[in-house]
Amino acid sequence: MKTALLIIGDEILNGNTLDTNSNFAAKKLNENGFNITTKITIGDSKEQILDTIADLFNKVDFIITTGGLGPTKDDITKTTLAEYFNCELVSNPEILSYLEERFAKMGRTLNDLNKTQALIPTKAEGIINPVGTAPVMWFNHNGKALVTLPGVPKEMQYLIENIVIPKAIETFKVDEIIHSNLYTVGIPESSLAEILAPVDEEILNQTSSNYYKLAYLPDFGIVKLRLSGIGKNKEEIQNQLLIWKDKIKTLAGQYIFSEEDKTNLSQIIGNQLIALNKTVSTAESCTGGYLAHLFTQNTGSSQYYYGSVISYDNSVKEHILNVPTQILDEHGAVSKEVAELMVKGALSKLNTDYAIATTGIAGPDGGSEVKPVGTIWIAVGDKNQIISKSFRFNFTRTQNIHIFAITALDMLRKFIAQ
Amino acid sequence: MKTALLIIGDEILNGNTLDTNSNFAAKKLNENGFNITTKITIGDSKEQILDTIADLFNKVDFIITTGGLGPTKDDITKTTLAEYFNCELVSNPEILSYLEERFAKMGRTLNDLNKTQALIPTKAEGIINPVGTAPVMWFNHNGKALVTLPGVPKEMQYLIENIVIPKAIETFKVDEIIHSNLYTVGIPESSLAEILAPVDEEILNQTSSNYYKLAYLPDFGIVKLRLSGIGKNKEEIQNQLLIWKDKIKTLAGQYIFSEEDKTNLSQIIGNQLIALNKTVSTAESCTGGYLAHLFTQNTGSSQYYYGSVISYDNSVKEHILNVPTQILDEHGAVSKEVAELMVKGALSKLNTDYAIATTGIAGPDGGSEVKPVGTIWIAVGDKNQIISKSFRFNFTRTQNIHIFAITALDMLRKFIAQ
Repeated sequence: MKTALLIIGDEILNGNTLDTNSNFAAKKLNENGFNITTKITIGDSKEQILDTIADLFNKVDFIITTGGLGPTKDDITKTTLAEYFNCELVSNPEILSYLEERFAKMGRTLNDLNKTQALIPTKAEGIINPVGTAPVMWFNHNGKALVTLPGVPKEMQYLIENIVIPKAIETFKVDEIIHSNLYTVGIPESSLAEILAPVDEEILNQTSSNYYKLAYLPDFGIVKLRLSGIGKNKEEIQNQLLIWKDKIKTLAGQYIFSEEDKTNLSQIIGNQLIALNKTVSTAESCTGGYLAHLFTQNTGSSQYYYGSVISYDNSVKEHILNVPTQILDEHGAVSKEVAELMVKGALSKLNTDYAIATTGIAGPDGGSEVKPVGTIWIAVGDKNQIISKSFRFNFTRTQNIHIFAITALDMLRKFIAQ
Repeated sequence: MKTALLIIGDEILNGNTLDTNSNFAAKKLNENGFNITTKITIGDSKEQILDTIADLFNKVDFIITTGGLGPTKDDITKTTLAEYFNCELVSNPEILSYLEERFAKMGRTLNDLNKTQALIPTKAEGIINPVGTAPVMWFNHNGKALVTLPGVPKEMQYLIENIVIPKAIETFKVDEIIHSNLYTVGIPESSLAEILAPVDEEILNQTSSNYYKLAYLPDFGIVKLRLSGIGKNKEEIQNQLLIWKDKIKTLAGQYIFSEEDKTNLSQIIGNQLIALNKTVSTAESCTGGYLAHLFTQNTGSSQYYYGSVISYDNSVKEHILNVPTQILDEHGAVSKEVAELMVKGALSKLNTDYAIATTGIAGPDGGSEVKPVGTIWIAVGDKNQIISKSFRFNFTRTQNIHIFAITALDMLRKFIAQ
């Protein structure tokens, strides 16, 4: 069923408020088989609301609006809808007495402005909002429907899950949509697409009555692969997606780090460490504390993350991590030798089971012919073994730091899992 | 000038990805006098893209699209636009050689898929994307314009500020908007508004033909004060804004840390240190590397920032920073005594002129009756003097870490300036 989200509010349009409602609603609706074809944000303007609703009723079966339902003058959604559907606003006694009760519990009585909340267009069904004061209005219209929700995130999100979706599923007959995700790291989107060309081809040429799709969703260092299927037979779609998922795993398994919506590599490592009852520390040069920050942003990280020596200046590499001056002079700070000695230093000084070290050139300055900006040496290890690799990236300073850290985390993840 | 944002991407529509791009773009466009009248999200569907663009060209003067520009098969924006504007795709030699260079720097060569990135519709101007591989396409069309941006947030946001807005201001005639900003730290928005009430009053009561406004834009720990003037006479507006700016400085000078769009406290400190030829190090517990990251994200920070000891585990406070076990036992890790000893440890172990130390409870776990979540002790100092203060905040873990770090930086800024 084609569904549209219509977000009404100047504050969203001019960027003062970040709209998280529609993302939440989209996710929930999608999971329940609604096909969201468009999401439109407009201002608190009567003309725009009237125009957009007329237009959307030509394109979709179900319109969900949020916002503009407060009792103040700049909230015009309700009166505008009464105009659109050409009907009166009448006070709904059930909603009015709910509001009276709600206010009484807070020791307050309804003023005239509050009472307007109980006004419902005669062509709509008024539904009590159990988590707020603005009621839900449900309009059935030529076999289609429009429902209005308040914009307050806590209310909107409750109402989507508990009122809108159940009522819409009951009202309409909806097609199944199923998604299955895989997350890769350490390979660019275009190379991944080359490797997965056979699966792309198969999906393109499949002839069942279901609709299938493989999407590549890159996000600095990580590419999310999303397999989707839409159709009547849930089980058939699930089986087909599993077949393609297995093919993707066969073709690109070495790059896949998660099959669930858990893409936080530092948390994935945290879970590995908790399971093994082990600890980790970091010794960072070019990532300059960002690796430490990625670990410590996770609740509970103090259980396995002991700390870091950020050896931005070579003197710190020498004095705290015990990297000999001679090695620094001979190989340079950005070298296999220094990265490995930094791991050793972190293991011994911070006394952890594992350690990661990074040393590289984030840029834009500091590059050379032999070691251009974007070069990094990463070492990971424990007391028995240290492995190191060099990489080259070519982004801005901030992006390089981010991808350096993601790459280092992935090396540690593999090292622990080996 | 009426402007529309058109976000293209199934992943946004179905809620898999939270769209933060359009919020960022809306804010920046709004600040520069663009009137955003609608924001539409649609899927990677040719028909929908064609329909929506035709519709938007009837309603607005300027369309900004994001997404659907990657090299893979599910990215169809470019071919669809070529169809809309009825023209061919031709490889742009300048963009192609930029891509070749970019890939060469990473030690890679372009595959066929990568080469398609250089294809540009003949009716568009192709503009190199300095932070990614998908070029910007700018279409002029019957006195209106459409520009396409990639959906990757870091790229999109860079391009909006550095390419789209300047080029659009040059292309269209937009009324002059002048902004003049001041940045405060260490005072909540409501208290600041009380102090600045006389200026608010004056702005409200001014009677020139220009439109003036003072906006309070809080952002965790920092409140940006934005004075704006819109009108025909640039000089008159600039002079008027200067008068109010001076009044604000007289009333709230002690909280102002920047008068330019340089809100990066770590960079402001960097400039102080470079001028004095001094160095700094950090010793972090609860900020867990975030302070180090704030310093090292700045180009050239290796000149003054030596490093950090992230002593997340108490053993690191003892063994590397030399905080005696007895002090930790007696006062707890979150205490004035430990914070000050951490500064001493950093000064001596990292051998810098200044040091900052943080020790606190970021939450959501680890709080107690006496030291609830959000409590922090911060100490800053040099070899002659160490000062320390405690603060309490009440945000989420990530937000607490951020505001802890901002507060610590501001303490160091004042300490150096004293």
